[in-house]
Amino acid sequence: MCGIVGIVGKSNVNQALYDALTVLQHRGQDAAGIVTCDNDRLFLRKDNGLVRDVFHQRHMQRLIGTMGLGHVRYPTAGSSTSAEAQPFYVNSPYGITLAHNGNLTNVEQLSKELYESDLRHVNTNSDSEVLLNVFAHELARERKLNPTEEDIFNAVRTVHDRCRGGYAAVAMITGHGIVGFRDPHGIRPIVYGKRETEQGVEYMVASESVALDVLGFETIRDLAPGEAVFITVNGEIFTRQCASDATYAPCIFEHVYLARPDSIIDGVLVYKARLRMGEKLAEKILREHPDHGIDVVIPIPDTSRTSAVELANHLGVKFREGFVKNRYIGRTFIMPGQAARKKSVRQKLNAMELEFRGKNVLLVDDSIVRGTTCRQIIQMAREAGAKNVYFCSAAPAVRYPNVYGIDMPSAHELIAHNRTTEEVGELIGADWLVYQDLEDLVEAVREGNPAITDFDCSVFNGEYVTGDINEAYLGRIEQSRNDAAKAIVDVENAQIGLHNN
Amino acid sequence: MCGIVGIVGKSNVNQALYDALTVLQHRGQDAAGIVTCDNDRLFLRKDNGLVRDVFHQRHMQRLIGTMGLGHVRYPTAGSSTSAEAQPFYVNSPYGITLAHNGNLTNVEQLSKELYESDLRHVNTNSDSEVLLNVFAHELARERKLNPTEEDIFNAVRTVHDRCRGGYAAVAMITGHGIVGFRDPHGIRPIVYGKRETEQGVEYMVASESVALDVLGFETIRDLAPGEAVFITVNGEIFTRQCASDATYAPCIFEHVYLARPDSIIDGVLVYKARLRMGEKLAEKILREHPDHGIDVVIPIPDTSRTSAVELANHLGVKFREGFVKNRYIGRTFIMPGQAARKKSVRQKLNAMELEFRGKNVLLVDDSIVRGTTCRQIIQMAREAGAKNVYFCSAAPAVRYPNVYGIDMPSAHELIAHNRTTEEVGELIGADWLVYQDLEDLVEAVREGNPAITDFDCSVFNGEYVTGDINEAYLGRIEQSRNDAAKAIVDVENAQIGLHNN
Amino acid sequence: MCGIVGIVGKSNVNQALYDALTVLQHRGQDAAGIVTCDNDRLFLRKDNGLVRDVFHQRHMQRLIGTMGLGHVRYPTAGSSTSAEAQPFYVNSPYGITLAHNGNLTNVEQLSKELYESDLRHVNTNSDSEVLLNVFAHELARERKLNPTEEDIFNAVRTVHDRCRGGYAAVAMITGHGIVGFRDPHGIRPIVYGKRETEQGVEYMVASESVALDVLGFETIRDLAPGEAVFITVNGEIFTRQCASDATYAPCIFEHVYLARPDSIIDGVLVYKARLRMGEKLAEKILREHPDHGIDVVIPIPDTSRTSAVELANHLGVKFREGFVKNRYIGRTFIMPGQAARKKSVRQKLNAMELEFRGKNVLLVDDSIVRGTTCRQIIQMAREAGAKNVYFCSAAPAVRYPNVYGIDMPSAHELIAHNRTTEEVGELIGADWLVYQDLEDLVEAVREGNPAITDFDCSVFNGEYVTGDINEAYLGRIEQSRNDAAKAIVDVENAQIGLHNN
Amino acid sequence: MCGIVGIVGKSNVNQALYDALTVLQHRGQDAAGIVTCDNDRLFLRKDNGLVRDVFHQRHMQRLIGTMGLGHVRYPTAGSSTSAEAQPFYVNSPYGITLAHNGNLTNVEQLSKELYESDLRHVNTNSDSEVLLNVFAHELARERKLNPTEEDIFNAVRTVHDRCRGGYAAVAMITGHGIVGFRDPHGIRPIVYGKRETEQGVEYMVASESVALDVLGFETIRDLAPGEAVFITVNGEIFTRQCASDATYAPCIFEHVYLARPDSIIDGVLVYKARLRMGEKLAEKILREHPDHGIDVVIPIPDTSRTSAVELANHLGVKFREGFVKNRYIGRTFIMPGQAARKKSVRQKLNAMELEFRGKNVLLVDDSIVRGTTCRQIIQMAREAGAKNVYFCSAAPAVRYPNVYGIDMPSAHELIAHNRTTEEVGELIGADWLVYQDLEDLVEAVREGNPAITDFDCSVFNGEYVTGDINEAYLGRIEQSRNDAAKAIVDVENAQIGLHNN
Repeated sequence: MCGIVGIVGKSNVNQALYDALTVLQHRGQDAAGIVTCDNDRLFLRKDNGLVRDVFHQRHMQRLIGTMGLGHVRYPTAGSSTSAEAQPFYVNSPYGITLAHNGNLTNVEQLSKELYESDLRHVNTNSDSEVLLNVFAHELARERKLNPTEEDIFNAVRTVHDRCRGGYAAVAMITGHGIVGFRDPHGIRPIVYGKRETEQGVEYMVASESVALDVLGFETIRDLAPGEAVFITVNGEIFTRQCASDATYAPCIFEHVYLARPDSIIDGVLVYKARLRMGEKLAEKILREHPDHGIDVVIPIPDTSRTSAVELANHLGVKFREGFVKNRYIGRTFIMPGQAARKKSVRQKLNAMELEFRGKNVLLVDDSIVRGTTCRQIIQMAREAGAKNVYFCSAAPAVRYPNVYGIDMPSAHELIAHNRTTEEVGELIGADWLVYQDLEDLVEAVREGNPAITDFDCSVFNGEYVTGDINEAYLGRIEQSRNDAAKAIVDVENAQIGLHNN
Repeated sequence: MCGIVGIVGKSNVNQALYDALTVLQHRGQDAAGIVTCDNDRLFLRKDNGLVRDVFHQRHMQRLIGTMGLGHVRYPTAGSSTSAEAQPFYVNSPYGITLAHNGNLTNVEQLSKELYESDLRHVNTNSDSEVLLNVFAHELARERKLNPTEEDIFNAVRTVHDRCRGGYAAVAMITGHGIVGFRDPHGIRPIVYGKRETEQGVEYMVASESVALDVLGFETIRDLAPGEAVFITVNGEIFTRQCASDATYAPCIFEHVYLARPDSIIDGVLVYKARLRMGEKLAEKILREHPDHGIDVVIPIPDTSRTSAVELANHLGVKFREGFVKNRYIGRTFIMPGQAARKKSVRQKLNAMELEFRGKNVLLVDDSIVRGTTCRQIIQMAREAGAKNVYFCSAAPAVRYPNVYGIDMPSAHELIAHNRTTEEVGELIGADWLVYQDLEDLVEAVREGNPAITDFDCSVFNGEYVTGDINEAYLGRIEQSRNDAAKAIVDVENAQIGLHNN
Repeated sequence: MCGIVGIVGKSNVNQALYDALTVLQHRGQDAAGIVTCDNDRLFLRKDNGLVRDVFHQRHMQRLIGTMGLGHVRYPTAGSSTSAEAQPFYVNSPYGITLAHNGNLTNVEQLSKELYESDLRHVNTNSDSEVLLNVFAHELARERKLNPTEEDIFNAVRTVHDRCRGGYAAVAMITGHGIVGFRDPHGIRPIVYGKRETEQGVEYMVASESVALDVLGFETIRDLAPGEAVFITVNGEIFTRQCASDATYAPCIFEHVYLARPDSIIDGVLVYKARLRMGEKLAEKILREHPDHGIDVVIPIPDTSRTSAVELANHLGVKFREGFVKNRYIGRTFIMPGQAARKKSVRQKLNAMELEFRGKNVLLVDDSIVRGTTCRQIIQMAREAGAKNVYFCSAAPAVRYPNVYGIDMPSAHELIAHNRTTEEVGELIGADWLVYQDLEDLVEAVREGNPAITDFDCSVFNGEYVTGDINEAYLGRIEQSRNDAAKAIVDVENAQIGLHNN
Repeated sequence: MCGIVGIVGKSNVNQALYDALTVLQHRGQDAAGIVTCDNDRLFLRKDNGLVRDVFHQRHMQRLIGTMGLGHVRYPTAGSSTSAEAQPFYVNSPYGITLAHNGNLTNVEQLSKELYESDLRHVNTNSDSEVLLNVFAHELARERKLNPTEEDIFNAVRTVHDRCRGGYAAVAMITGHGIVGFRDPHGIRPIVYGKRETEQGVEYMVASESVALDVLGFETIRDLAPGEAVFITVNGEIFTRQCASDATYAPCIFEHVYLARPDSIIDGVLVYKARLRMGEKLAEKILREHPDHGIDVVIPIPDTSRTSAVELANHLGVKFREGFVKNRYIGRTFIMPGQAARKKSVRQKLNAMELEFRGKNVLLVDDSIVRGTTCRQIIQMAREAGAKNVYFCSAAPAVRYPNVYGIDMPSAHELIAHNRTTEEVGELIGADWLVYQDLEDLVEAVREGNPAITDFDCSVFNGEYVTGDINEAYLGRIEQSRNDAAKAIVDVENAQIGLHNN
């Protein structure tokens, strides 16, 4: 998962891009980058680290120009070098830079094509570099000195023809403008808006509406599946549907966990969707455990707090923050001659005995993935004196890997893969476990915008909306995840690669 | 404000000190330091920055030894150089290092004495360096090759005689052990505990019990006012009352804002004290505004959430997190030729219109200091469509400066200084404002431990428990704050000073 | 001026490239870079600084692969950002990297062509990026998945057609091999050679033969003007004359000052050429000042020492190192509120009174450019007690700017521009001044290889061998030098630009 | 070996200290440090690295004050951490900082005394920290608020009583002034001087006179053995003989190799002493090899060039620089899975065949220590075609370790230890070898100042002037050298220790 932003402004956009990236930082804390365009010159700064650590005064002073892109990256297996920080760049044609959120599922075939037919060299494992080259190649075919919006939309059209998967991207064409586009299923979110300034109208394209809000931009709307927006360096704006077969199937996991609660995605306020998840989960609990005897509802911070408050309201039970989250997590160092110690959950969460001692507690989490943390938390609750520990998940059981850009473990690491709710409950040590029903989750989100008839729920039901995912593919990514995990990780990463010095 | 920790362990203590500092990081994000002692050799690493940024693998590898100290520093006017990061060190006698939380109110006189009578050079503006030198000087007077616990407690006794103010400190005597001590009024908190390991018993002294909890130490108890604890390098432990006139008057602001909710300070669980603050505040609101018509209670994140939940319960009104906090705040850069822009509150908090539109909202904060942020937040609430915006503070009006180690503005910058509640309410733009009564605040805390009869409530009532604070003193610190504020602040701090390279 | 190197080896070439760059470091101390190719993956590290400061263990560990390029850069007006460190990279076609020594004189026109016809974006002011793009564009036109040596030589041929100026370059085509080429006048030097290893034959292309010597490579020969060499990744080697109108006119200044004395350039041992310069200069002095009365010959270290020893021999006068050079020059810092002080020559050279007091001294320098240092040195000699100070230059008067890659001041800053020898002698304060005659200089070099009939001597005689340099061009570069000098120079350069992070 | 400097000026002395350190950099390239005193505040910057790398603009801006000390350190076995960079600091009494050149031979006993009687903690292995503490302890015993020059000279007197070895030191007493002192045999050099400025007279104390020269200071004189100079912060100057039994026995190796040729040490111009060494060596060669048949004299750069020129003159043979030194030496990196390769002499020196082919060459070096480099150089000369290779050393055979501060290998690593000249000649592969006679070396130096009747020549004759060196001591240091060599060396040194952060 990643966060992207592009701004065409009327004065230097570096600070606005920086601020937007801090607002999108929850979408990726692994690396950050900004590229700006001043006349025909590009300026780029990207590195591993948080936004506040990557950009210093000396960098900002040189990131001049009235348009630019920004990116924050989530750490994924096998893409953690600073060389794969975004935005990426190709110099032919025009000088194009691109920032991407999502995942291409046919990246191997595309790489081969790029190399064999287009003679384009791709120097990283990043599918974003591939996406950029496909776009660049298609745009180059027009051979125009000054590409029009039609040329650009045509290039996006061919990108949709060639690429499979989920993707939302912003690309900047040096001297010309910024284009934002979204895959034909609208799996990953992307929204655009504008603000009036004394110098004129400025436009922003971003992963989430909250980036627009906080910077004082007014949301115009989400890009539709397959749609593209092109904003010229002078502030003209064009949109176009670039996919013939576009259908709405946005990723439902954005609402479960990824997005900020104050974002509106495809017309749905995430916060409100989460309140509804709590409500529906309460109903299920009341159905399944009418005599629950719960004394207190305790969320696992932070995401589940929204659902948990509403869940407690509907159960008519007290809501209490029994776990205190340590916001300053450090590393575990390896001393010569000592074995590595595992960071326990205790470093992250502390249970307040007062809220557990002698009580029947219901713990609420947004979802259960590997289950290891759950197990430890339940153990902590028991050590804090809880009489019974019940557990519920605002999302259904996660049983399948994600192939559209969310960094999830492979199937065999998912605790619910090939297991029943009871088996999972037993494994994590809960007295009972309740999962949200998938139809309830869908309903909770869809109530916000009934026009969305379909969602990508593949991690829950194994149905991949792009239609190209089979056992072989899943086996291949599982293997490559394992290989990446085995590769030696440099403790202090040399900033080396092709796009850096 | 600062966080301190000292550990006498059975194997390398660097990771434990590091972990403890991450747990105490809320007490200071400005600088961090660790010193360890391996036989007769000390190893020190300290610098400006968060714990996770200051310590890298290469530092940890050299921070060897089975005892050590750690410190996190809060940014205060005039002490932001890395040269004033702690722990501090003097080499005579024994090699002593010290980490300190608090403030000495007679530091000018002590500095003079140290220089004139003791010939000791103090190289920073830090009162901690002064405290260390007073302790070192007194310990040196015994002229013992192997100081006993009595020698050490005698030195602490003279420290209490010479020093005024609020202080909790840990000091390490090279080759001998670690001593923790607390001022005779017990203004700043300090607690100690132990854990059993396969190699034997390990001891920790820390600012807050939560550091012990998270690392698996069992709290033994808080140090009493004036008391000291000495743990030898071999693990013998001694405690002694070192003040003849000790009286309990702990800082009540720890409960209002400073401490983590899951800490137990002087027998009081902070979390529970905050719940009671919410309860009592609800009662006052009901008394003052029986027909309040409040639709929703919204906390200003994060501290006030605990009180606000309980307040909402007692008012019988819905509790909702209407503000989303941006956890990744960045800087505002100054571009050549551009004026500095102010970071708006919007960068930190985002109001969800859904919870404000057309409603009577009650905003809850832990306290009101300068009032500028309050005003902006109330403005945001109105822009989000609130019908009426009421405001309440879980603490009474802050009207006087703090002289015991909390970095607060001077009197004239406090919005409530020489103003009535109505005047403050009007200034911040609230439809009405309710402050907690001081007796209610005291009661809310004291219920947790009725044995504490007195608190330092000076920021609320101007009564300074050490008895040495007068107008002249307050005028002097106000002046020095102003001077410090005017001094040029280096954007990127050269790590220079005496105790570093 | 710059130093370049390319190696196709049988095991990792990073250390050999690094070692070669240290040997070539005299050609540029401003920035350094290495790119390596491992299968289809490129690894790049470049930054401002000396070779020993740019490459650390962590960088070297990742610079894997059996072929690669290296570059050291001389600081030139307007190209000092780390973004313009070399090698440069384009990803289309194949992924090509290039390192360049020299200067293109029609870079403006080429940039325009690249942008307008080839749609290629060039992001720096560096003519090397332009050269790379011209080469890449021409190679792309063949549209071959596997370019043959003929394809590559054809591309070089078109480079010669399109580019004007002096250039020696090495380019690496990812997965295929390394090509070295030299402009049709052979202005800048380039040489290649081989070494046998247990794994097979390795090839190196470099600016100077000394890089081959020191690394145990045997020189094969210099590339002829217009010639190219292509070494495949598997170690096949091909050479081809790629210019129809090639004529030998190498830069004579390499022998005067630029090259290391132990290099053999175009068959001439630089050291020996310098001995002959001393000999011929002695003869001229004896002709012009038969009763010179010189007591001692003192070189201005370091370059002129070789000529000066032989000059002293021929004059029959004692040779003494009267100036001691400080090898560790530091910076002059600007303190707040203080004016910048000039670094005096004294920081660089110290005169030993013993060798000056009461004597007639002849100072020998390799050349006189601005004349400011000369003047100060003569002043030092007088202060050290010299009776008479005579001055001679192993090169003729420098009167014209260089346009083929040597960073020289513009005409108006050259002390000999529009001035006679007597006027210059007076300005620098010498009792008399003798310049080498140009025919003597040419002869001194040509004796080493009589086959070279022509040299580029433009800085001495204003005749530019490429035939495209006119007053308008010289005026333009003078203007751009002035503009660059006025531009604000960042004290600590943010490593930003396009090819880095 | 190290370089030291202290300045009491009339304006900020940071730039002057920095410049002086660059001039003294030949005495140590391992670490550098500056401490300045502004009123009662000290500012320190020290770290491993060259002067130009350790001090940046941001450091210099804070190194304010009109007096200060500087230090450059030579890498010695076991003292390479940045924590042992100098100057050192103690805060009691007064705040004293110290920079030291030399070695104490009774450091173990002193450390014990400091700990047991004085209760002073010494945190490094550095004898400089011990020296500082001895001085500080003695000065503290006077217990004066304002120490007079007499108090300070008394402290130096006791330092001479307690310390054995060779030492030259500068110490700064915060707020009071700078004291320079020299051991009672005057083993290590130290000189002082002054310069007039518009603000008044400024004083400098430094290791070598060249530092004074280059900065425009006029040398007053060398400190005599046992003498001290004290310059108050206001510019009053006092000198005093502080040793009852002082005798002149300066280290003769300063003249052979350590010092810059343009320095005057104890009245002897080093350059001239080296010329005389060449002269006397020529006479010995003529005596021993009257029919030498030498064609050319070639120095091993750089130090021996001075002697070699004069030697060639006296032999009546041509002098030629047959070896070119590579001034930019890099590191050898260890790649994973590869064995470490040795850096060959070839990386440092390149032989020009022209000067060797078919000739009888005499190579001249300043001295022969381990002999390994000699052997490789002679081998290179033969490979370059030399007919016969003769070798001579401007110093006698080095047969004994140095205990007064020069980092030399232990006895068993010295090639001449227990070997005859013939045996050494054979080992290094020379056709014959001639060593300077010790009496000739002494005479060559003493001619410059006949008042010096004695020198420390211990590395040549094993006679240690301090009279406290026995087999046991030498065995101990040999052992500790071996241990240090075995200790793991961190590739990238964490800047940790006590005096830094």
